Amino acid sequence: MATQQIKNIASYRVIYGDTDQMGVAYYANYLRWFEIGRTEFLRQVAVPYTSIEEKGLCFPVAEVSCRYHKPAHYDDAITIETSLTALSRASLTFSYRLFRPGRDLIASGWTRHACVDREGRVTRIPADLEAILMAQISSYNSTSG
Amino acid sequence: MATQQIKNIASYRVIYGDTDQMGVAYYANYLRWFEIGRTEFLRQVAVPYTSIEEKGLCFPVAEVSCRYHKPAHYDDAITIETSLTALSRASLTFSYRLFRPGRDLIASGWTRHACVDREGRVTRIPADLEAILMAQISSYNSTSG
Amino acid sequence: MATQQIKNIASYRVIYGDTDQMGVAYYANYLRWFEIGRTEFLRQVAVPYTSIEEKGLCFPVAEVSCRYHKPAHYDDAITIETSLTALSRASLTFSYRLFRPGRDLIASGWTRHACVDREGRVTRIPADLEAILMAQISSYNSTSG
Amino acid sequence: MATQQIKNIASYRVIYGDTDQMGVAYYANYLRWFEIGRTEFLRQVAVPYTSIEEKGLCFPVAEVSCRYHKPAHYDDAITIETSLTALSRASLTFSYRLFRPGRDLIASGWTRHACVDREGRVTRIPADLEAILMAQISSYNSTSG
Repeated sequence: MATQQIKNIASYRVIYGDTDQMGVAYYANYLRWFEIGRTEFLRQVAVPYTSIEEKGLCFPVAEVSCRYHKPAHYDDAITIETSLTALSRASLTFSYRLFRPGRDLIASGWTRHACVDREGRVTRIPADLEAILMAQISSYNSTSG
Repeated sequence: MATQQIKNIASYRVIYGDTDQMGVAYYANYLRWFEIGRTEFLRQVAVPYTSIEEKGLCFPVAEVSCRYHKPAHYDDAITIETSLTALSRASLTFSYRLFRPGRDLIASGWTRHACVDREGRVTRIPADLEAILMAQISSYNSTSG
Repeated sequence: MATQQIKNIASYRVIYGDTDQMGVAYYANYLRWFEIGRTEFLRQVAVPYTSIEEKGLCFPVAEVSCRYHKPAHYDDAITIETSLTALSRASLTFSYRLFRPGRDLIASGWTRHACVDREGRVTRIPADLEAILMAQISSYNSTSG
Repeated sequence: MATQQIKNIASYRVIYGDTDQMGVAYYANYLRWFEIGRTEFLRQVAVPYTSIEEKGLCFPVAEVSCRYHKPAHYDDAITIETSLTALSRASLTFSYRLFRPGRDLIASGWTRHACVDREGRVTRIPADLEAILMAQISSYNSTSG
């Protein structure tokens, strides 16, 4: 493709409350960081998640996958790299890579989301939103097969 | 008083995700355990919190206080002792004591709640609910002054 | 096989702190419930995780996968069904199914763990532990491929 | 005093995982934000908490108090204002004020910490650290009485 797809770069500082007694970040917290990544991705492409909610839609997570490569430690300023790697009529997939300072890869994963209306019914992604998202689909970093 | 006020006894097993790298439970998690305590207290006096929500009311926390006496560790089966220690027209206070096996006191505290309607306005606790709660006010274990 | 493999059944009551503003349990919290499941599985086969830690070993999560079928709601008493579905020299995989009351499947998933020593090196699962675990490998409910 | 005491200003963006089904941030999460505040305070006065841990010391929370004035909502970029409001030989108290954009006060509170060594014994704050902290004690915003 001629255009460059957005790869959002967010950051997060690991707090004590994120760690467990193994001395590293607890595995469930990575999913919170994935959320930070996709939220900032949507903000960057000018469709903040709050605007999606205002249209009566939400994107609940239908499936998540995460591989833990190296541990994240207390006070690490981690980098969250997010791209949009799949899009269908009523579903979208974000892919993530988390790095420690120095570009050590600590985790990679993806989340697949349904597009759902206020009554919880799966619904088609609105055309204007679909167009914006379509332009951002990246084959880079796809780990969702 | 002639009657005995209820002191609810709930329990919770500390998981890895509750601990931090100091090897003990992270301090914010005790507030989750307070929630377990007051939820089970309300269930025990036959006004489960879901029934309060169905009436269009909720009890958001207006203030919390917690003293940490001894650490809670991974896999501890802690006991949560909850009593109702204050009640006014639109506010109620629960008090809590947390124990490790063997009755070591690990924490004590209280939460003060407002009674709020769907629009977020402070509202009077309904008379039937107030009557039930009034019968359960305990002077025992009050740490809320 | 002649013997019946263990499928541990644990339970958890969803609290307010587990929900998000969509009115359902936040997706990261399911990973906490997976932890409850595997902890109780290990306790049931008489190798509680604390005993594994006492040997200087731990089982950090190397990979997680979770599919969300139906939402879990506040105050749901969910059932966590855990089985051991793969075992190799230095790795083991647990599979999980979460149900709401009435046997509605809300989520299914698995976690793959490495066996690691105090210095963080991948290490062989001790022979006595391996024997206990080997007897419990279940093909039932395997979602880990 | 002639000198101006530091009042650290940190910020945090509320995520979905911080909210509950009331549509506002869950009350326990404010204690995570208090942690962010005191961590950044210590970094600003050049004694990052990691350096305190390297000396074999830690500052577990002995008591917390929090008043919730207005709710924090999803995607709010909140401001965390932290000051040091008390110091004794083996104890220190941080005070916090949390604001929404526009300077709406959402919460105020404090945490009192013990100074503890690796064996968990209360120990005197080292003289060099005490001197640095002493210069930062602020009477402003003290709510710890």
